[in-house]
Amino acid sequence: MNGAESLVRSLLANGVDTCFANPGTSEMHFVAALDRVDGVRCVLGLHENVVTGMADGYYRISGKPAATLLHCGPGLSNGSANLHNARRAESGIVNIVGDHATGHRPYDSPLTADVPALAGAVSASVCTPANTETLGADAARAVAIARQHPGRIATLILPADISWSEGGVEAATHSATPPPVIDPLAVETARQLLGGDGRSLILLGNSTATHEGIGLAYAIAGRAGADVMASSTVASHPGGRGTHPFPRVPYPVDAAIEVLAAYDNVLLVNCPPPVGFFGYPGKPSLLCRPDAVVHTLSRREQDGTEALRLLATAFGLDIGEMNRPAIGPRQEIELPHGEPTPEKLDQALAALLPDRAIIVDESITYSNGFTTTRAAAAPHDWLVITGGAIGGGMPVATGAAIAGGGRQVVNLQADGSAAYTLQALWTQARENLPCTTVLLNNRRYNILLGEYRNVGAVPGPTAMSMLDLDNPDIRWADLARSLGVEAVCVATMEECAQALSRGFGSGKPYFIELLV
Amino acid sequence: MNGAESLVRSLLANGVDTCFANPGTSEMHFVAALDRVDGVRCVLGLHENVVTGMADGYYRISGKPAATLLHCGPGLSNGSANLHNARRAESGIVNIVGDHATGHRPYDSPLTADVPALAGAVSASVCTPANTETLGADAARAVAIARQHPGRIATLILPADISWSEGGVEAATHSATPPPVIDPLAVETARQLLGGDGRSLILLGNSTATHEGIGLAYAIAGRAGADVMASSTVASHPGGRGTHPFPRVPYPVDAAIEVLAAYDNVLLVNCPPPVGFFGYPGKPSLLCRPDAVVHTLSRREQDGTEALRLLATAFGLDIGEMNRPAIGPRQEIELPHGEPTPEKLDQALAALLPDRAIIVDESITYSNGFTTTRAAAAPHDWLVITGGAIGGGMPVATGAAIAGGGRQVVNLQADGSAAYTLQALWTQARENLPCTTVLLNNRRYNILLGEYRNVGAVPGPTAMSMLDLDNPDIRWADLARSLGVEAVCVATMEECAQALSRGFGSGKPYFIELLV
Repeated sequence: MNGAESLVRSLLANGVDTCFANPGTSEMHFVAALDRVDGVRCVLGLHENVVTGMADGYYRISGKPAATLLHCGPGLSNGSANLHNARRAESGIVNIVGDHATGHRPYDSPLTADVPALAGAVSASVCTPANTETLGADAARAVAIARQHPGRIATLILPADISWSEGGVEAATHSATPPPVIDPLAVETARQLLGGDGRSLILLGNSTATHEGIGLAYAIAGRAGADVMASSTVASHPGGRGTHPFPRVPYPVDAAIEVLAAYDNVLLVNCPPPVGFFGYPGKPSLLCRPDAVVHTLSRREQDGTEALRLLATAFGLDIGEMNRPAIGPRQEIELPHGEPTPEKLDQALAALLPDRAIIVDESITYSNGFTTTRAAAAPHDWLVITGGAIGGGMPVATGAAIAGGGRQVVNLQADGSAAYTLQALWTQARENLPCTTVLLNNRRYNILLGEYRNVGAVPGPTAMSMLDLDNPDIRWADLARSLGVEAVCVATMEECAQALSRGFGSGKPYFIELLV
Repeated sequence: MNGAESLVRSLLANGVDTCFANPGTSEMHFVAALDRVDGVRCVLGLHENVVTGMADGYYRISGKPAATLLHCGPGLSNGSANLHNARRAESGIVNIVGDHATGHRPYDSPLTADVPALAGAVSASVCTPANTETLGADAARAVAIARQHPGRIATLILPADISWSEGGVEAATHSATPPPVIDPLAVETARQLLGGDGRSLILLGNSTATHEGIGLAYAIAGRAGADVMASSTVASHPGGRGTHPFPRVPYPVDAAIEVLAAYDNVLLVNCPPPVGFFGYPGKPSLLCRPDAVVHTLSRREQDGTEALRLLATAFGLDIGEMNRPAIGPRQEIELPHGEPTPEKLDQALAALLPDRAIIVDESITYSNGFTTTRAAAAPHDWLVITGGAIGGGMPVATGAAIAGGGRQVVNLQADGSAAYTLQALWTQARENLPCTTVLLNNRRYNILLGEYRNVGAVPGPTAMSMLDLDNPDIRWADLARSLGVEAVCVATMEECAQALSRGFGSGKPYFIELLV
């Protein structure tokens, strides 16, 4: 058995059965091994940032890591923006980067690059297997790291000769390291803080944004008179009927400062402190009040849900009774009319969303927070672009659909961001995924227009030429069709609702260009 | 004057008047400064790899660096594959990467990344200005590094506060460091080697692949009985009537070994040793004969043309007499008929190419070397993708057209590679560039099919699904139109020739999907 085959078998033995790939020459032995070993679903992306974004979306829905297959340093670079987002989402990925044969590297042939340096910037661990015999074990260790709590990016740099040589060994399962235990003092401090004077906020991060975590937080908050919110970039959270309200800290700095000003105490549960996305002249980086007490109940590596259980118990609550709110009957929500607005889109979505849908939200400025959908629509999962690298939406939606096994995916997608990774549509068509994209075509980098106004008052002609996307207009529906996805261009909410119904009923990719 | 304005003024004072950009929030002060300072042409790309590829193409035609403007770590990652190609092409670029304000960085907000590590992998120099006062001088130094011989990538990491603070100073011109002198012993050794026994090859790299360098090499070769060739990945070289034959070392390893087997001596002039693009089991990395004598006349940092002058003089040649071959009259080349082949495409191109065209060649497997065009077409420049990172073609063509000031650009473009950076078409439309793309649609990663056969005999269904691009077919002409470029889809050489004529006559972007 050659190295490549031992790698494929070891991935499978350790539960990794999905591979998102854009292979090159140095990965051909891996591809050949896939023909000899059954059981790996291989999904091709036309660009590496589609590949890595798909792996991120896949993890967020399935809760388990996929492998990626990238080609040398430039392939890794191409996929690194969505690896950055995946790192912030705490998504586990076994990130395999093929590289030159060991003996060939010193010749500095054209594709040679500093792969370990590039990998280090986006990975929790980087390993270059030293020989074919240990490759399987190195792969098993990479899976264990990726599966850890929280998920991590474990990069395996695979020299071609390690892959093609004989002597590969299929590795046994490598067990994950348990998370660090919760500090009883941190729990007691949290109890005193929430039980004491002042208004308190419980802020939940990625891995605690579940029905159970939110339910525990609400029970504690009810007892202590506190509020519950989510990090502004929480990777995924449940929404719709049968969920507690779960507002995110607003993205705009001023709005976030205003919301957080109410709180004397902020309890962080697997959540970074609330900081601005960017720094601005004369504005603080830390957005809660300067005199607020910020206490970390559990950090990201720990089991935040267990920490919440311990805190609930410390408050004398019966954990067994913490059920999620009842999923009430489907509500009649009126379909909106006329010109599109974020509020009307929210309303249409709330009315039409099928059960157990997955919403991937890269709507950027065309969002009202989708409060109606999140409160009153059918139960769903809501996914957010976590790391600020635009172009996550369509790949994450594609990977989520692969993991969803038939669940409807809805991608609320800003146009400027969509232009980064539009190749994802081709994979949606190829894999026939039930993914409806709502492309919010405002023909500009609207968020930058706002940022510019913060900086320089009225944009002049050069600035406008950097912010406008209407010269020429991108004909998005045509573009989607050219990549194999059925598409429609709509300008009213009546058409939009009709298109949403059509997309949701189709069981396949559908693309709605909404002129806003 | 704030930092951003001092940066713009210092770039202009040092001769950088073109900026390829995909700005984000942290770059808004730079964008605002562009509205206050006249003289910088700003070109927007929808993706950073388009931005960096344009800067590469711009340098190769203009011989001077442009600035790029990228947004934080992920923006730099997105543009790094074409920075890799630019590094191999020895293109000078002032690569400006906006980053968080100094005081904001420690908060590890979502977009925070290890920018210096990412930049180090693709740059000759990385500088983070320490304060607003020195920013202008740091920029001037970056321009000097980018302008050096050969061109280099000088990355300037620009914290937002350094940009927005007052106290900027416009820097005076910073002069470039002269290249290291030529070693007389290296010249004498070369003379003895070429003057001695055995068959010799003079191999020219990037900066010597000019009319003057090739003319000198031919004069020396004539005297010494040697041959002249180009590196397989030479960035740019002259072609057409009035040029010496200038074959590149073949890309396929076996072909390269066969061609190079004839030579006992290989003289490298600003050229890396001829090594395989990849290593393969049982095949050498160094492709000249193991017993061949390889001598470096001049390395890339040196002035290789001066080295050739010294060597010519050592051979007793009169440098003043070394003219390029006469540009003979335009030849009548018959237009091809019927089904497309690489040979017929070469013929059509040779027949129709306008004077002083720029050809950007990412044709990959759909190439016969374009020997007829390179020998008999109107004089032109031929640009090659240098670093093996696919997706260079369309951005390099776009940047070359910006630099070309009306010269016709022809982009011979493989489909798999085109899918990486198709957003470049939008910039071509926006800037109304005379760029004709010939998209060679074979609906597969054809080069990988060959590489796979080298590895695993007949591809099975999984492998084929990783190599085929026909599920679904990309409708390339439709896609180009959706991005604002006039396009046609053709299947015969008659139609192709007609489309080439139409494109060349149009003075604007034109896209030909050739079904091959």
